[in-house]
Amino acid sequence: MSPHSLPPAPAAYRTLDTDGIRAFLAGVPTLATRLGGPAAHWRIREVSDGNLNNVFLIDGPQGGVCFKQSLPHVRVDPAWKMPLDRTFYEAAYLREIRPCVGALTTDILHFDPDLFVLVVESLDRHVVLRRGLMAGGDWPDAARAVGAFVARGAFHTSLLAAPFEEITRRLDVFSGNRTLTRITVDLVLTDPYRDHPRNHWISPDLDGIAADIRTDPHVRRRVGAMQARFLTCRQALLHGDLHTGSVMVADDDTRVIDGEFACPGPIGFDCGLFIGNLLLHLFACGDSAGQDRAVRDIAQFWASFHDTFGELWRTATRHDGNGDAYAAALFRDDPSGLQQAQADFMRDVTADTIAFAAMEIIRRIVGYAHVPDFDTIPDRAARAGRQAAALALARDLLADPDIVTTIADLESLARGRAR
Amino acid sequence: MSPHSLPPAPAAYRTLDTDGIRAFLAGVPTLATRLGGPAAHWRIREVSDGNLNNVFLIDGPQGGVCFKQSLPHVRVDPAWKMPLDRTFYEAAYLREIRPCVGALTTDILHFDPDLFVLVVESLDRHVVLRRGLMAGGDWPDAARAVGAFVARGAFHTSLLAAPFEEITRRLDVFSGNRTLTRITVDLVLTDPYRDHPRNHWISPDLDGIAADIRTDPHVRRRVGAMQARFLTCRQALLHGDLHTGSVMVADDDTRVIDGEFACPGPIGFDCGLFIGNLLLHLFACGDSAGQDRAVRDIAQFWASFHDTFGELWRTATRHDGNGDAYAAALFRDDPSGLQQAQADFMRDVTADTIAFAAMEIIRRIVGYAHVPDFDTIPDRAARAGRQAAALALARDLLADPDIVTTIADLESLARGRAR
Ligand SMILES: Nc1ncnc2c1ncn2[C@@H]1O[C@H](COP(=O)(O)OP(=O)(O)OP(=O)(O)O)[C@@H](O)[C@H]1O
Ligand SMILES: Nc1ncnc2c1ncn2[C@@H]1O[C@H](COP(=O)(O)OP(=O)(O)OP(=O)(O)O)[C@@H](O)[C@H]1O
Ligand SMILES: [Mg+2]
Ligand SMILES: [Mg+2]
Repeated sequence: MSPHSLPPAPAAYRTLDTDGIRAFLAGVPTLATRLGGPAAHWRIREVSDGNLNNVFLIDGPQGGVCFKQSLPHVRVDPAWKMPLDRTFYEAAYLREIRPCVGALTTDILHFDPDLFVLVVESLDRHVVLRRGLMAGGDWPDAARAVGAFVARGAFHTSLLAAPFEEITRRLDVFSGNRTLTRITVDLVLTDPYRDHPRNHWISPDLDGIAADIRTDPHVRRRVGAMQARFLTCRQALLHGDLHTGSVMVADDDTRVIDGEFACPGPIGFDCGLFIGNLLLHLFACGDSAGQDRAVRDIAQFWASFHDTFGELWRTATRHDGNGDAYAAALFRDDPSGLQQAQADFMRDVTADTIAFAAMEIIRRIVGYAHVPDFDTIPDRAARAGRQAAALALARDLLADPDIVTTIADLESLARGRAR
Repeated sequence: MSPHSLPPAPAAYRTLDTDGIRAFLAGVPTLATRLGGPAAHWRIREVSDGNLNNVFLIDGPQGGVCFKQSLPHVRVDPAWKMPLDRTFYEAAYLREIRPCVGALTTDILHFDPDLFVLVVESLDRHVVLRRGLMAGGDWPDAARAVGAFVARGAFHTSLLAAPFEEITRRLDVFSGNRTLTRITVDLVLTDPYRDHPRNHWISPDLDGIAADIRTDPHVRRRVGAMQARFLTCRQALLHGDLHTGSVMVADDDTRVIDGEFACPGPIGFDCGLFIGNLLLHLFACGDSAGQDRAVRDIAQFWASFHDTFGELWRTATRHDGNGDAYAAALFRDDPSGLQQAQADFMRDVTADTIAFAAMEIIRRIVGYAHVPDFDTIPDRAARAGRQAAALALARDLLADPDIVTTIADLESLARGRAR
C-alpha cells in the first residue's frame, strides 16, 4: 500500500484521546443520555487488543457504550499507513445485517463520518471467545449462535432473498472496502504461498512443512482456484474476518463484532474462517476434553448454519420470495426438487468452507498474523509439533479435495490428527 | 418494469429523425470531417432491425458512420417504457474492450450523454452473421474471430489480468446496467421455466416438450443453479447478448457489435449464447453441408476461445502479471501446474457454456424473443419438428450435466440429433 494512494484524511479528523472521547460523547445527546449523569463521571478504559483501531469502553451511571475509531495507520505499526474508512464499512455492515441477525451482533448507536468513530453497545459482561477458549472456558451455545448469524446474514444479502437490482446495489457499497479486502487477499490468500518477508514461523522446526505448502503443485492449484473464488463469487455479504476473536460471549449471549472487513464473497469464506479458528484451537489444545469441545463447536456451528440457511430458503420459496437465483417459481410446488437444489448449493459451500478453513490455518501459523492459541504451550518443540500437525492437515485438505467432503468427516479427521 | 421507477429522461433528450441526425452529425467536427463534403449530401438510411434502438447508417463523400440512439421505450413496443441508458453502457463496454480486442469490434467515434446517441464505425461491407447463415453463406473465419473476441475481452477484464481493485472498479460500472440485465434474467433465465404470458411457441406441436421443460425436476435444479451462476459469478465483463445477430461479417473481417447488455458475469454465458445460436442454426438448417458448417463453426469458436484465453494467461504468468486470482507467483516456475489450473478453470467454463447454450436454445423457441432461423422452413410441422429436436437436446443437456462434458461431445451429439 503506497501512502500516496491514500485519500487525504478529512480536515476535521483527529484521533481522540480520553478527554476527546468524553467531549465527543457528551456532544451526542443520545449517547450522553444512554451513559447518564455528568460526563465527568464516565469511566473510560481502552480495550484495543487488535491490530487496527482504537477501542474504548465507556461506563456511565445509566449504561455503557463501546467507542471505536479508525487511525490513519495500523494501530500496532504506525509506519503502515491506512485510509480511515474501515469504521465506515463496519457501520455499513451493521446497518445491513442488524435487521436480520438482531441481537447476534451489537446495535449501532452512532457513526461520525468526519472522525470515523463508530459507537456500539458495550458488551461488558462478555469475553472474547478466543481468549475464553484459551482459558479453558466452555460456551456450549456460542457456535450455534455464530452459525445462525452467518446463515441469516448471508441469506438475506443473497439473491435467494431479493431481486438482483437490490442485492447488487447493497453489495456494491462494499466493493469500496478495498483496503481491508487487499489485506485479506495478501495475508490470507497469497503471501503464505510465496516467499514473502511478512511470513514467519517457528524456524527451523516448520521450515520443511512451510516449504512443502509453498511448492506442492496440488496445493497451488487449489489455492489459485480459491483466490478466484473469493474474488469472483459474490454469493452474499460476508463478515470477512470471522475468527474466534470476532465473537464475544457471555453465559447466555453471543455476539459477533468487528465487521470492518465486510465484502461480497462466497459464504464458505465466513464459515471457513470460523471453523479454521476452531481447528487451530483444537490443535493448540492439550486436553482431550477441550478437543472434544472444539469438535462439538464445529459440528454445532455447521448444523446451525446449514439448518438455519435451509429453513430461510424453504420459507422464502413457500412464500413466493422474489429472489432471482433459484427463483421461487421453480420449486414452489416441488419440495423435493428444492431439497436437491439446496444439497447442490451446500455441497459448494462445504467445499469452499473446507478450503478456506485450511488456508486460514496456514496463514495463522506461517503468515503475518498468528493466533495466540498456541502460546499456551510453553515448550517450543511441542508447540511447533502441534502447529506442524495442523499445517499437515491443512495441506492435505487443499491438495486433495476428495479427502474430506463433509464437515463431519473434517471433524473426525482433525480429531484424529490432533491427538 | 413499472414506468414510475424510470429516472426522468434528461430535458435535452429527443429522438432524432433524419433531419435531426444530419444536424447532429454536422455539429460534431470529427464526425463531419469523417463523412466529408456538405451535410446536405450525406445519405442517411435506417437499418434498425432489432427490438430496442434506432440505428442509422450515414454515408458521406469521405466515409460512413453508424448512428445508434436509445428510445425511451422498446422500439418495437412503444408501450414498454425503458430508461435511455443502454447506449451509455454500450459505449462504456466499447471503451473497456476496444483496447484488447481491437478491430474485432467497432471503433467508438462519439457518445452524447444527453441524447444517448452512440456513433461508431459503419460496417457497410458487412452483413449480420445470422442473416448470412440463413441465406446459406459461409464465413470460415468468423467463428474463430468471435472466439478470440470473447477470450480477449474476458481475460483482460478478469482477475487473471489485473489486481482486484482495478477490476472491481471497472466491473462495478456495469452493475448499473440493471434494465438490460433484468431482461436477461427474466427472458433468458426465468420465464421459459414458469407459466408466463410472454412465452409462446408453435402450439399444440410443442406444448408437450415445453411443459416437460417447465416441470422436469432435473432441469429446474440446473436452471436454478445457472440463475445463481449468472448473477453471482463475476468472472469478467460479458458482452451479454452474443448471438449470431450481434456479429457482422465480411469476407475478410468479423466484428462483434451491440454490447448494450454488457454486465459482469461468468465467461461461459457469452460462449453459451454464441454456441446456442449456432446450435439453433444447426437444427434449423435443412442441408447437411450447412449443418457441417455449423458444427465446424462451434468447434472453431471454442478452439479459438480456449487457446487464445490460455495463451493470454500463460503470457501473463510468465511476465509476472499482477492478477489476484491464480496469482502469477503460484505458477511462474510451474508450467504443468498452470496447465492443470487452466484445465480446472476451463472445465467450469465449459459446463457453464453448455448449460447457457441449452437455456438460449429453449428461450429462443418457447420464450418471448424467437430466432428467425427456423422461418426458412416453410412447412409448419417440419419447423415444429426441428424445434422439438433442438428443445429435446437442450432439455437433456440441462437434466444431466454428465451427458456431455466437452464441446466436442456437444458437437457430435447435436449433429446426430439434428440429422
Ligand atoms: N462492543 C464491544 N463491547 C465490549 N468490548 C468490545 C466491543 N467491541 C470490541 N471490544 C473489545 O475490543 C477489542 C478490539 O475490538 P475489535 O476487534 O473490534 O478491534 P479491531 O481493532 O478491529 O481488532 P482487529 O485487529 O482484530 O481487527 C475486542 O477484542 C474486545 O475485547
Ligand atoms: N456499425 C454498424 N455498421 C453497419 N450496420 C450496423 C452497425 N451496427 C448495427 N448495424 C445494423 O443495425 C442493426 C441493429 O443494430 P443493433 O443490433 O446494434 O441494434 P439493437 O437495437 O441493439 O438490436 P437488438 O434488439 O438486437 O438489441 C444490426 O442488425 C445491423 O444490421
Ligand atoms: Mg478488526
Ligand atoms: Mg441490442
